[in-house]
Amino acid sequence: MGIELQNHQSHQEDGPAEEPTSRWLLNTPEPPSMWQELVGYIRKNVLSKKDNRRNKTKNSSSNPVYSCLKSVFPILIWGRQYKLNLFKKDLMAGLTLASLCIPQSIGYANLAGLDPEYGLYTSVVPPLIYSTMGSSRELAIGPVAVVSLLLSSMVRDLEDPVTDPIAYRKIVFTVTFFAGAFQAIFGLFRLGFLVDFLSHAALVGFMAGAAIVIGLQQLKGLFGLSHFTNKTDVVSVLSSVFHSLHHSWQPLNFVIGSSFLIFILLARFLGKRNKKLFWIPAMAPLISVILATLIVYLTNAETRGVKIVKHIKPGFNQPSVNQLQFNSPHLGHIVKIGLISAIIALTEAIAVGRSFATIKGYRLDGNKEMMAMGCMNIAGSLTSCYVATGSFSRTAVNFSAGCETVVSNIVMAITVMISLQVLTRFLYFTPTAILASIILSALPGLIDISGAIHIWKLDKLDFLVLAAAFFGVLFASVEIGLLLAVGISFARIMLSSIRPNIEALGRLSKTDIFGDINQYPMAIKTPGLLTLRISSPLLCFANANFIRDRILNSVSEVEEEDNEQEVKNDKVLQVLILDMSCVMGIDTSGVVALEELHQELASNDIRLVIASPRWRILHKLKRAKLEDKVKQENIFMTVGEAVDVYVRARSPSHDLC
Amino acid sequence: MGIELQNHQSHQEDGPAEEPTSRWLLNTPEPPSMWQELVGYIRKNVLSKKDNRRNKTKNSSSNPVYSCLKSVFPILIWGRQYKLNLFKKDLMAGLTLASLCIPQSIGYANLAGLDPEYGLYTSVVPPLIYSTMGSSRELAIGPVAVVSLLLSSMVRDLEDPVTDPIAYRKIVFTVTFFAGAFQAIFGLFRLGFLVDFLSHAALVGFMAGAAIVIGLQQLKGLFGLSHFTNKTDVVSVLSSVFHSLHHSWQPLNFVIGSSFLIFILLARFLGKRNKKLFWIPAMAPLISVILATLIVYLTNAETRGVKIVKHIKPGFNQPSVNQLQFNSPHLGHIVKIGLISAIIALTEAIAVGRSFATIKGYRLDGNKEMMAMGCMNIAGSLTSCYVATGSFSRTAVNFSAGCETVVSNIVMAITVMISLQVLTRFLYFTPTAILASIILSALPGLIDISGAIHIWKLDKLDFLVLAAAFFGVLFASVEIGLLLAVGISFARIMLSSIRPNIEALGRLSKTDIFGDINQYPMAIKTPGLLTLRISSPLLCFANANFIRDRILNSVSEVEEEDNEQEVKNDKVLQVLILDMSCVMGIDTSGVVALEELHQELASNDIRLVIASPRWRILHKLKRAKLEDKVKQENIFMTVGEAVDVYVRARSPSHDLC
Repeated sequence: MGIELQNHQSHQEDGPAEEPTSRWLLNTPEPPSMWQELVGYIRKNVLSKKDNRRNKTKNSSSNPVYSCLKSVFPILIWGRQYKLNLFKKDLMAGLTLASLCIPQSIGYANLAGLDPEYGLYTSVVPPLIYSTMGSSRELAIGPVAVVSLLLSSMVRDLEDPVTDPIAYRKIVFTVTFFAGAFQAIFGLFRLGFLVDFLSHAALVGFMAGAAIVIGLQQLKGLFGLSHFTNKTDVVSVLSSVFHSLHHSWQPLNFVIGSSFLIFILLARFLGKRNKKLFWIPAMAPLISVILATLIVYLTNAETRGVKIVKHIKPGFNQPSVNQLQFNSPHLGHIVKIGLISAIIALTEAIAVGRSFATIKGYRLDGNKEMMAMGCMNIAGSLTSCYVATGSFSRTAVNFSAGCETVVSNIVMAITVMISLQVLTRFLYFTPTAILASIILSALPGLIDISGAIHIWKLDKLDFLVLAAAFFGVLFASVEIGLLLAVGISFARIMLSSIRPNIEALGRLSKTDIFGDINQYPMAIKTPGLLTLRISSPLLCFANANFIRDRILNSVSEVEEEDNEQEVKNDKVLQVLILDMSCVMGIDTSGVVALEELHQELASNDIRLVIASPRWRILHKLKRAKLEDKVKQENIFMTVGEAVDVYVRARSPSHDLC
Repeated sequence: MGIELQNHQSHQEDGPAEEPTSRWLLNTPEPPSMWQELVGYIRKNVLSKKDNRRNKTKNSSSNPVYSCLKSVFPILIWGRQYKLNLFKKDLMAGLTLASLCIPQSIGYANLAGLDPEYGLYTSVVPPLIYSTMGSSRELAIGPVAVVSLLLSSMVRDLEDPVTDPIAYRKIVFTVTFFAGAFQAIFGLFRLGFLVDFLSHAALVGFMAGAAIVIGLQQLKGLFGLSHFTNKTDVVSVLSSVFHSLHHSWQPLNFVIGSSFLIFILLARFLGKRNKKLFWIPAMAPLISVILATLIVYLTNAETRGVKIVKHIKPGFNQPSVNQLQFNSPHLGHIVKIGLISAIIALTEAIAVGRSFATIKGYRLDGNKEMMAMGCMNIAGSLTSCYVATGSFSRTAVNFSAGCETVVSNIVMAITVMISLQVLTRFLYFTPTAILASIILSALPGLIDISGAIHIWKLDKLDFLVLAAAFFGVLFASVEIGLLLAVGISFARIMLSSIRPNIEALGRLSKTDIFGDINQYPMAIKTPGLLTLRISSPLLCFANANFIRDRILNSVSEVEEEDNEQEVKNDKVLQVLILDMSCVMGIDTSGVVALEELHQELASNDIRLVIASPRWRILHKLKRAKLEDKVKQENIFMTVGEAVDVYVRARSPSHDLC
């Protein structure tokens, strides 16, 4: 690494050398082979534990087992320095969290088609596991609305939760197991990029669509309807609601539900106006549950048509190992649902975790997070939990309540565990309408309108992805919405490879810079030569013919223009300079296309000049003997050099320094 | 378009200006919106008829209807100038072609699971239609081995050709109709690129695999077996053959078949040694048929176990409109088979047509070819033909026989038509073993070993695609082989977008050129700054997190190195220059990743500098207000300028001209 303050400009005095810089280009060493690259990649990305140096503590422990354990269980690192004053904050945050978590868990279990206690179970074991393995400090673990909806809407196709709740529950546990297994595998093999496949825009659209679908599902509880459709799309749900409203609905349910919904929303409004009162919206759901339950209990409203939760089984999580269905006839579907749930759950958790980590100024290791989520869901599937993940609304409450570490999750889990012992009898009289209003009150947070506007302004194609996810979820099904969004996202990537831009370049006056003549209208073309840049990372089977034809068409256009303007003979197109600086790879079809291009141009007396080919391209051309045909003197390191050489060759009298 | 011989070097005397060239960059006009681009693309690619100017004749006819007709029917152009001396050559070529075509057609019909006359029909109508619409001069149209295999192997799953030949035939005609419709649609909407999806490597592998599968299928005819498997994979076929050989096979069939196979191969050897004797291998199959038929007829060998063709229905093509099955319960499958056959047929025809067009020095218009193929197959499906395309072996014979125009196809079709009237009674005694040996003799041409070696040398991943297609066809099925090949090809394109390279750049001494420090080990890094180039065309959801993390890791590595070497304070990393010259597009995830990168770097006191952003990128950054954060003075047109400005800022005393 030398110092080069002055040297780099001294070439200007030398004037262009006889043998230009392309000697460097032509004498570069062989690039690493595919195997070497693959091995290097695996070593760097899969085996290495230090890819995230910024997160690494400088603690150089001598025991490799202990350091490996520490990397899997971050609690061993921060647990040693844990102090009482931190615990005070975490205790407060954890208790606030629990007060929000208990009613939400019951509501989400209901949404997932399970009995209320399973929601509470899911708020016990997964947070405890996560607190030992997770690297986020704020993430509040437990059941969430979108995953609950996803599970019920997909598992319902295999088994009906009303007619055979036990079989349904078995499938849910099996799905949870596979979701956890997939998440752990993603983390183990560092396949974090799989989560990226659901782009931000897709997620915004999907979440908004899911929120509306979930809201519509709550109409059942809010109106106290008995008959309801199994489908999730807007049309089926609304027609089912209207149909039921004509027949039988219990107005008292609606009165209770909507009045407490207004109470919760008012509390949130208060909390937003004064940040110090954050605990009011956080406590509001629990207060609503207590008040509503007391009202029903004292007035015997359940005899007047108010639907209540009824029996919740008291006690700790039950083991559910023997309920996993590994030889179910639906196994293929179960694995698929597990995969979809795994990805959706991870995407939500990592998006939430990352945004809060950024606020607090630390980086989240996606692979480690996936590992932690996987383990917690596998453990959950063995202890009667369904798929848990990081909840957006509860994480925000946790953050506002001033949590310092994942200890707040431990506090929450223990509180939920205690209430599973103590509170279940009390919750017997909780009206289901209140659960509906608690879920409804959490939904606006899932609809990110300003995010959607931002995406619309920035990128119309991204907005198309958003809209596809949104309307797909709304009018077809959760799966179709996701499939559409991912499909469009990938089609876009493919399209940019299949139909790349071929840009004509011109020189910006008084510089050596060549720019797209559309972008820089003042760029100057040199008569007698045409400079084209291939804006594709691959010159491959999917675009080689297209690129060749596009280049030949450009050449024809220039030739026709020349003919029309009847330019002098020495200004007629003689050289085509191909700027390959952006082409990273080439396959056999690409080599053939270049050969054909060379041949076609040669038959028209036009010289093909290749400027700034990348390492791999150059060596492929060498191996294909194409270099012999194009000739070494027609390969240059930069477009500027190629132009200079051509201009000098045409008019030697103008050769100057 | 000005002349700029001297100007471009004069900036060197001016010295670096205070406000650098980035003023051009920042003041570029708005890029065209997505809609403008889409409209422009459609206008250019779908509506315009002049995209292929090189092929356009300069005949400026005043009648638009006539000129449109001429563009659809090229025969109207060349037909006017057609001369007698051309016809003499075409007549000879056409007769040679017919002599090869008749036995091959019967054999391929057998391979396709149809009666022999359908192969002959397919050599009548499609070549006649093609001769009016096609733009290739050499392509010999008719049934081909690979498409015949493809059809029988896929239609067999829907209907058995032995138990219900009529239903089977109806499905084949319907498939032919859809294949033609797809081809015509591809041509009409200029979707020629769809044919490119089957890369050259995939085609080589697929053809070789198909040739071996076809060869194995011929063992049935060669050994005179009665029972044979319906499957096409190697394992099933070989076990079927061995099983039959233990029970009942007719040695006489094998004697006839193999002796004439040796005769045909000898004739080909002779033809290869002396190019003037090209007609010997071309005539050998017909001679074999005549000789073998005479032998069987004279010796009554059919009574001694020699299997013969038996009845061939004499007469012209029968109309088959009423046999098309548009309301079949298998319609979905039929459409799928039609699509696959359409693509395979087109890929073979266009590959063959293009290679001979290149030899004769003209260019084939892929879209027009597809239109012609589509029309000929639709017409074929209405006149008892199955899918026809350009045959590799017969096109080579046509070329060697000196054909000048598609008139040779007309001559061939008429000859076949006449023999359908005259020869069918004679062909009654043709042994099926001879058809097997004719097909076997055509197969080596489908196996391109030198092509495979070339691909292996050039590109290992392409060879993987080849191998996948080859072994997929051989050991699973035709569909799986194709699916594997296309899947791997596309996964490769995706991978280059998902896991792009991030290259560290260094200055090549005495120049303004910056190159990858791996490629140019002599490149010099400037202390205190790190230059990275993003080698991806898109900074999007699929790679944004990866790119951000990779860049941050590189920064950490440099910082650690600096710490270890305890460099002086002013040499510690202060600036990260991001060369975005290869990034063509950015979506919202990409913008977010850049924002996070800027934030993270800012918190480490490192300045983010963006060099040579493309048009669209710059305007997206402007719209996302990211430009305000990064600040305009940190956006440069080239890496060199950015480095110069940084170096000058750090050590003002070194500022020099």
